[in-house]
Amino acid sequence: MKLIFVSDLRENQPVDSVFMCAAKNQGVTKSGSGYLTLKLLDRSGEIEGRVWDRANDLARGFEKSDYVRVRGQATLYQGRLQIRVHDVARVNDTEVAAEDFLPKSPHDPEAMAAELTAILRGMKNPHLLALVEAFFTDDDFMDLFKRAPAGKSIHHAYLGGLLEHTLSLLKLILKVVENYRGIDVDLLLVGGFLHDMGKIYEFSYDRAVEYTDGGQLLGHLVMEVEKVSEKIRSIPDFPAELAMLVKHMLVSHHGSYEFGSPKLPQTVEAMILHYLDDLDGKIQSIQFLMGKEPGSRWTSFHRAYGRSFFRGDGGEKKD
Amino acid sequence: MKLIFVSDLRENQPVDSVFMCAAKNQGVTKSGSGYLTLKLLDRSGEIEGRVWDRANDLARGFEKSDYVRVRGQATLYQGRLQIRVHDVARVNDTEVAAEDFLPKSPHDPEAMAAELTAILRGMKNPHLLALVEAFFTDDDFMDLFKRAPAGKSIHHAYLGGLLEHTLSLLKLILKVVENYRGIDVDLLLVGGFLHDMGKIYEFSYDRAVEYTDGGQLLGHLVMEVEKVSEKIRSIPDFPAELAMLVKHMLVSHHGSYEFGSPKLPQTVEAMILHYLDDLDGKIQSIQFLMGKEPGSRWTSFHRAYGRSFFRGDGGEKKD
Amino acid sequence: MKLIFVSDLRENQPVDSVFMCAAKNQGVTKSGSGYLTLKLLDRSGEIEGRVWDRANDLARGFEKSDYVRVRGQATLYQGRLQIRVHDVARVNDTEVAAEDFLPKSPHDPEAMAAELTAILRGMKNPHLLALVEAFFTDDDFMDLFKRAPAGKSIHHAYLGGLLEHTLSLLKLILKVVENYRGIDVDLLLVGGFLHDMGKIYEFSYDRAVEYTDGGQLLGHLVMEVEKVSEKIRSIPDFPAELAMLVKHMLVSHHGSYEFGSPKLPQTVEAMILHYLDDLDGKIQSIQFLMGKEPGSRWTSFHRAYGRSFFRGDGGEKKD
Amino acid sequence: MKLIFVSDLRENQPVDSVFMCAAKNQGVTKSGSGYLTLKLLDRSGEIEGRVWDRANDLARGFEKSDYVRVRGQATLYQGRLQIRVHDVARVNDTEVAAEDFLPKSPHDPEAMAAELTAILRGMKNPHLLALVEAFFTDDDFMDLFKRAPAGKSIHHAYLGGLLEHTLSLLKLILKVVENYRGIDVDLLLVGGFLHDMGKIYEFSYDRAVEYTDGGQLLGHLVMEVEKVSEKIRSIPDFPAELAMLVKHMLVSHHGSYEFGSPKLPQTVEAMILHYLDDLDGKIQSIQFLMGKEPGSRWTSFHRAYGRSFFRGDGGEKKD
Amino acid sequence: MKLIFVSDLRENQPVDSVFMCAAKNQGVTKSGSGYLTLKLLDRSGEIEGRVWDRANDLARGFEKSDYVRVRGQATLYQGRLQIRVHDVARVNDTEVAAEDFLPKSPHDPEAMAAELTAILRGMKNPHLLALVEAFFTDDDFMDLFKRAPAGKSIHHAYLGGLLEHTLSLLKLILKVVENYRGIDVDLLLVGGFLHDMGKIYEFSYDRAVEYTDGGQLLGHLVMEVEKVSEKIRSIPDFPAELAMLVKHMLVSHHGSYEFGSPKLPQTVEAMILHYLDDLDGKIQSIQFLMGKEPGSRWTSFHRAYGRSFFRGDGGEKKD
Amino acid sequence: MKLIFVSDLRENQPVDSVFMCAAKNQGVTKSGSGYLTLKLLDRSGEIEGRVWDRANDLARGFEKSDYVRVRGQATLYQGRLQIRVHDVARVNDTEVAAEDFLPKSPHDPEAMAAELTAILRGMKNPHLLALVEAFFTDDDFMDLFKRAPAGKSIHHAYLGGLLEHTLSLLKLILKVVENYRGIDVDLLLVGGFLHDMGKIYEFSYDRAVEYTDGGQLLGHLVMEVEKVSEKIRSIPDFPAELAMLVKHMLVSHHGSYEFGSPKLPQTVEAMILHYLDDLDGKIQSIQFLMGKEPGSRWTSFHRAYGRSFFRGDGGEKKD
Repeated sequence: MKLIFVSDLRENQPVDSVFMCAAKNQGVTKSGSGYLTLKLLDRSGEIEGRVWDRANDLARGFEKSDYVRVRGQATLYQGRLQIRVHDVARVNDTEVAAEDFLPKSPHDPEAMAAELTAILRGMKNPHLLALVEAFFTDDDFMDLFKRAPAGKSIHHAYLGGLLEHTLSLLKLILKVVENYRGIDVDLLLVGGFLHDMGKIYEFSYDRAVEYTDGGQLLGHLVMEVEKVSEKIRSIPDFPAELAMLVKHMLVSHHGSYEFGSPKLPQTVEAMILHYLDDLDGKIQSIQFLMGKEPGSRWTSFHRAYGRSFFRGDGGEKKD
Repeated sequence: MKLIFVSDLRENQPVDSVFMCAAKNQGVTKSGSGYLTLKLLDRSGEIEGRVWDRANDLARGFEKSDYVRVRGQATLYQGRLQIRVHDVARVNDTEVAAEDFLPKSPHDPEAMAAELTAILRGMKNPHLLALVEAFFTDDDFMDLFKRAPAGKSIHHAYLGGLLEHTLSLLKLILKVVENYRGIDVDLLLVGGFLHDMGKIYEFSYDRAVEYTDGGQLLGHLVMEVEKVSEKIRSIPDFPAELAMLVKHMLVSHHGSYEFGSPKLPQTVEAMILHYLDDLDGKIQSIQFLMGKEPGSRWTSFHRAYGRSFFRGDGGEKKD
Repeated sequence: MKLIFVSDLRENQPVDSVFMCAAKNQGVTKSGSGYLTLKLLDRSGEIEGRVWDRANDLARGFEKSDYVRVRGQATLYQGRLQIRVHDVARVNDTEVAAEDFLPKSPHDPEAMAAELTAILRGMKNPHLLALVEAFFTDDDFMDLFKRAPAGKSIHHAYLGGLLEHTLSLLKLILKVVENYRGIDVDLLLVGGFLHDMGKIYEFSYDRAVEYTDGGQLLGHLVMEVEKVSEKIRSIPDFPAELAMLVKHMLVSHHGSYEFGSPKLPQTVEAMILHYLDDLDGKIQSIQFLMGKEPGSRWTSFHRAYGRSFFRGDGGEKKD
Repeated sequence: MKLIFVSDLRENQPVDSVFMCAAKNQGVTKSGSGYLTLKLLDRSGEIEGRVWDRANDLARGFEKSDYVRVRGQATLYQGRLQIRVHDVARVNDTEVAAEDFLPKSPHDPEAMAAELTAILRGMKNPHLLALVEAFFTDDDFMDLFKRAPAGKSIHHAYLGGLLEHTLSLLKLILKVVENYRGIDVDLLLVGGFLHDMGKIYEFSYDRAVEYTDGGQLLGHLVMEVEKVSEKIRSIPDFPAELAMLVKHMLVSHHGSYEFGSPKLPQTVEAMILHYLDDLDGKIQSIQFLMGKEPGSRWTSFHRAYGRSFFRGDGGEKKD
Repeated sequence: MKLIFVSDLRENQPVDSVFMCAAKNQGVTKSGSGYLTLKLLDRSGEIEGRVWDRANDLARGFEKSDYVRVRGQATLYQGRLQIRVHDVARVNDTEVAAEDFLPKSPHDPEAMAAELTAILRGMKNPHLLALVEAFFTDDDFMDLFKRAPAGKSIHHAYLGGLLEHTLSLLKLILKVVENYRGIDVDLLLVGGFLHDMGKIYEFSYDRAVEYTDGGQLLGHLVMEVEKVSEKIRSIPDFPAELAMLVKHMLVSHHGSYEFGSPKLPQTVEAMILHYLDDLDGKIQSIQFLMGKEPGSRWTSFHRAYGRSFFRGDGGEKKD
Repeated sequence: MKLIFVSDLRENQPVDSVFMCAAKNQGVTKSGSGYLTLKLLDRSGEIEGRVWDRANDLARGFEKSDYVRVRGQATLYQGRLQIRVHDVARVNDTEVAAEDFLPKSPHDPEAMAAELTAILRGMKNPHLLALVEAFFTDDDFMDLFKRAPAGKSIHHAYLGGLLEHTLSLLKLILKVVENYRGIDVDLLLVGGFLHDMGKIYEFSYDRAVEYTDGGQLLGHLVMEVEKVSEKIRSIPDFPAELAMLVKHMLVSHHGSYEFGSPKLPQTVEAMILHYLDDLDGKIQSIQFLMGKEPGSRWTSFHRAYGRSFFRGDGGEKKD
């Protein structure tokens, strides 16, 4: 049973709680005795654990990725809180509530998937309809797609986050294209559907969200191109140029080299996809930040954006 | 009468046509005789004119900003086409068709203004309603706002362009906000209305589009803040914080320091305004580029974007 | 009475002293009890205070911006010193010495203002004389101008700092222009006088130096353009081009886009103003850094400059 | 028969020679008559051709990618040499010498391929041996790999250039790894073999070197990952981690985001591959530049490197 | 005799005038005949000359760096003016006026040197006095120092320019230091004297200003450190730390890595030197630009500064 | 005797051990009592020491650069571990083992020097042979060259590191040049030998590795040019151009301005030197990082490279 969360720990506090053990490394001090360095996670954050006594014995009682019961004390070392672990042992998965370790989207994944499917089935291009259907009928894919997070950070990401972001983007695309002529809406929708799909392989999210080796070494852009190629090969007579245009949207959707796109957007659809994907992410993260600590006129500093955001009187008058 | 346009001139071609004289500079050669350097414009482009003979006499017959009849010959000098002018003299404005020198938007400015006005009058915030009304009832402002271009380049910009872009942006805002909660729509609409309004002072566009001195030295961001402040002073009890939020959207709408915004967007509304303004401009300019030379699979290289755009089979299947 | 300063606090030290409460935020723990997060300032620095017990009761006894007597203990949390507050209550302004909370310039503001006024009254341009007089006779402005700091950092900035920097810059301008011909000295002096004037609104400095909302959202460049425009409107027949040149110096004086100027310096006077303003600031901050910890051959690392400075034998032979 | 090359054309020179027609675009002047814009190539360079008379008739006599006999006159237009074409008609491939239009490597492709094959067959890793063999036995691949250029520029690139660069890199790798321990040489060799292989699809090089649409929209990094994946799927029990490591070297070999790698090198082999590929290219291009115009002490300015290179006394004493 | 200057040449104009031959390269056309490519200079600019007929014969009649009489015709080739040379032959130095080929400072070099010497002899530090005296008594050095230009561009630089800039900088230093305390004025003056001294070796300026090989490969910063070290070795008991501080000012005076300083300024004197050197150069170049084409409100675009400068009404009211 | 190393210290641990005192600064608290701030080093790292009691007395018992016995307690202050020193006193050099304070290369410096000497004596160019011999016969130089580290960081650098890196680079050069023609191998070897030689003056490494003042203010590039110039002056008839080419390789070997080279590589030898120097350093540092904490699939984050490196299964199959 989960008795305390990482984010609630204070210096010198005794600890007796269950965590997910995301890393388990054994070391040897200069004086020759063994020790363990653990990465302990729950849905509120992560903390380092150190086992100095009986390390070799305790190490035999659990593995990386186990849920473990940890007894010890929160303590500061070189300015960061860690747990000095006195005892650690594996607990059965049946004894823990998985949602204590990985948060979920507030929206029902089946309902979101149904809405997304309906939007894409409304397209007219038969080749693109066949392509999305090839994904919809791939149960392994759909299971992962409904479950995957959109990002690694425990505070900004959660199970179902990828689907939630993808659906929001498709709905945004449908609205924006009403304002312009000459857009290939079907192409744009398929780009929106698949642009982040490789994240189902870029992350592992069984007990915690972590980058996979392939996620680090290849990235979701390259991995999703491979997956899309595989699906396209299974569809008779899929036009080569259309395949290229779909894949172009995937590789270019980060919009610039510095953000990891090997090619710049070179069609109007690829350009729109980049902008709306970026905008949807920014609105969500700013509003998330605004929702925290609502009493003050400014949010805390957002490192990635290099600024704080202004709340004023807390938005009470709005919406 | 306009007999030939700048873009149709070829080397060694004789010239006898009317141009707008956008610059007239007198110089003296080392051997002591005078000469004239002219900038000659029409709606298709600009070309340099040089008067080597009778320069002092001819110079008395016209001024900068006059329409002039030019006789001479197109010739190459150091790799650029210029006109060696044999004769040049002022023609009356009544003898020229203004639209040969400055193109217009295909849309009726009065109809666009009516649509824009209706959108903004649909807001609920009484202070912001008073603010837009202060602009609507300012006839001098509205005349300029309906007439101003959105940019200097003769090929990308035209009379009415500012209004056309502003209206498109307002309609885009109305669609996008449907996808999100917690946005102050009225604030965002007012930001959209006023974000480029300073361009009515940044450019002169009587006979050609040119930067004004103030446009170069202060820029439209600063000039529109001053104008908005003037209007706000005329409205009783306009809330100070709301005034600040409106002006913040104006100064931050270029989105980054390097594009001339002295402040980064620090509200969700300022962030959305920046993205949608940028997106609307990009879609228009890419589609404009796509529309030229439709026979080839790629557009010519777009210097500002650092790339060509792909047309494929010319978009025949689209929309 | 001030018994201990922030910069003298050590881990585990008991605290009983008066601070300025610059922020007061109420939160609720996951277990449902209230707590307070305070920002406590004095002239030596700032520190976070946390109230875990009786938070709701204590919160009623003081407001943000009050001077407060704080009892508690200095403690480390996640590597930063904070005060765990056991008791906190408002004290009357009459019981504190304001200079314990905000340091002052070593120079007399009235004397500095007199010297600055004399320099500017020595100009010849009647319009610029009228402009500076419009500021000199604005008592509200002059009171703030004599009192405002030049920056936010408590260690580098102090009451009267804006006036001290401005006066130094004007004297530097007078010397430099002797070396060149063709400079519009009056224009340059007015630019020097007004270039940072918006800082009187960019900061609040009643009990501590903090950015105002307008300072963050608009910045001193934009705010001072508005103020100068207001003054110019009050002067009959002020030439439009001169007004533009003055405002150009204000918006361009940071010298580049990346430092928040929306326009680059485009006159020789604007260029000189940028260089001398930057040089005066750099000399002052380097010499300030040199004056600290005089025993060693190198200063500590200066983050903004990305380097340490060399003292050698401590400069004993100099000056 | 080829009578004159593009690089030998001078202003006003009459032209009667065969070129490869790389682009053929039809336009209409404002006065309603048709004209043709051609891109004419041979191995020495490219030049624009313009047909103003009988354009519609002449257009029927040839297509893009044909060899054509062109009669006309070299002339300057807006500072660039072009051919005003009086007559243009298709000639049979049998009447032209292909090497007049595309230069070849001085080395025999079969000999180079044999040397490359021998190096790679000397590896020990059975999986990697199977992978290279899958390419060696793919005749379509090997034909293209022996023929493809390493770059588009006609002056720096030629048929067989990709193979020449790849072989040089493999030999360089074999030497460098002798100096270090702990390098996975087989992995590095396979990375060297395949790192630019996608260029066989990035370019077309039948009658001239041009980017393909896929080359522009996806790039050789992404295209070669897809090809390698296809080959790996055909090999039983190819280890997943090894596949990932091979593909990681391909996507990261440009070494930084700004040069189009979506991932940075994250293994020591990927890092070495990036350095040696870059070094081999730089040595070749500097020596190529040095070899031109040997009489002067400095080469002409190299735009991509932002500098000239110093020859001194022409390197007569060297090698 | 000089009959026409490069800057006055027009297309198709016959040429018969004397130039300095700054480069003479022989080539061979594909058809086997020889040709010459010349760089022809005078004080107004440079132009390429091409000899197509009798190239081998004519080449025997002059060498690089000779003054030559050139007969031919100005003509455009690929958009740039060149001279097609019909005849070219050496003329004696006695027949030309050297000032037609290299302009001079308007100020007397002896008078400037006397003023500079007097300023530096007013220092108090005996070691630095000895150092400057070591330069003053080095006749070879002083001859070059009085004659060298401050830059390569013929339009911005002239004989005596280095001395003129150095003297202006020393006078500026003397004024600026009056405004501050704690500056080592003698050190700063010596830095000012020597900061660009290596330009006497970075350029050749016998008949034209050109970079020397050493100027390109080592640069004036490194070359002047070597020269200063040589002088310091000749002075008994010169303090090692003082030598280091002098050399530090030389290597750091460009102020940042990107402008070629291998070290950033790390003393207050090095920082001031960098700012004032930069300011003095900027004022001179802006005022030079302002002085050209005085009739218009804006200067032409200044590529290095990325902007035009505003003249307004031409500065008639100033100074 | 050394009882505990810096890297083994834990919070609250009592300390009684010998350290090298790298800095000793005296301060005065606001309450008037003296205190000491010490920088204490051993080969495992550095830590701050603070003396609050009897500071003035204890200060008399040791100097900066002494070995000192320190008694006190490890404690956290503002998130960093420090030693609160109760007693500190000088110990004789004879009582400490120097290798506890500065680690050494695992290779014998004499053997490395012999190998390096043999390589360089194999050159053919008599001038370059004379130059290297001038260094080999300079005992002071050779003593320092054998002893100097290649960098400051105690964890990456050690006595003999400069020689180890230089030798590895020379051997790498010999291998790489086999793959190319037209390289001046002797010039490249001399560049390799001398490129970092200035580090013998850039650092002090008597008891700890620290930057010297000259290292900070001038840097090893400039210092080694001065040293090479001195040697060249001692060799009769050393060709001026060859001297320039050698020095060019030294000043340009960092490869770009941003890494502190005042000139870019402008010969093929300078370019190769830059690449191979960079590659050799990168291989060593990545393999060093890989060798630490071998149990995990990824190394810790490498700040300078902005990434972690992938180990996979620990490289067990390699080499």
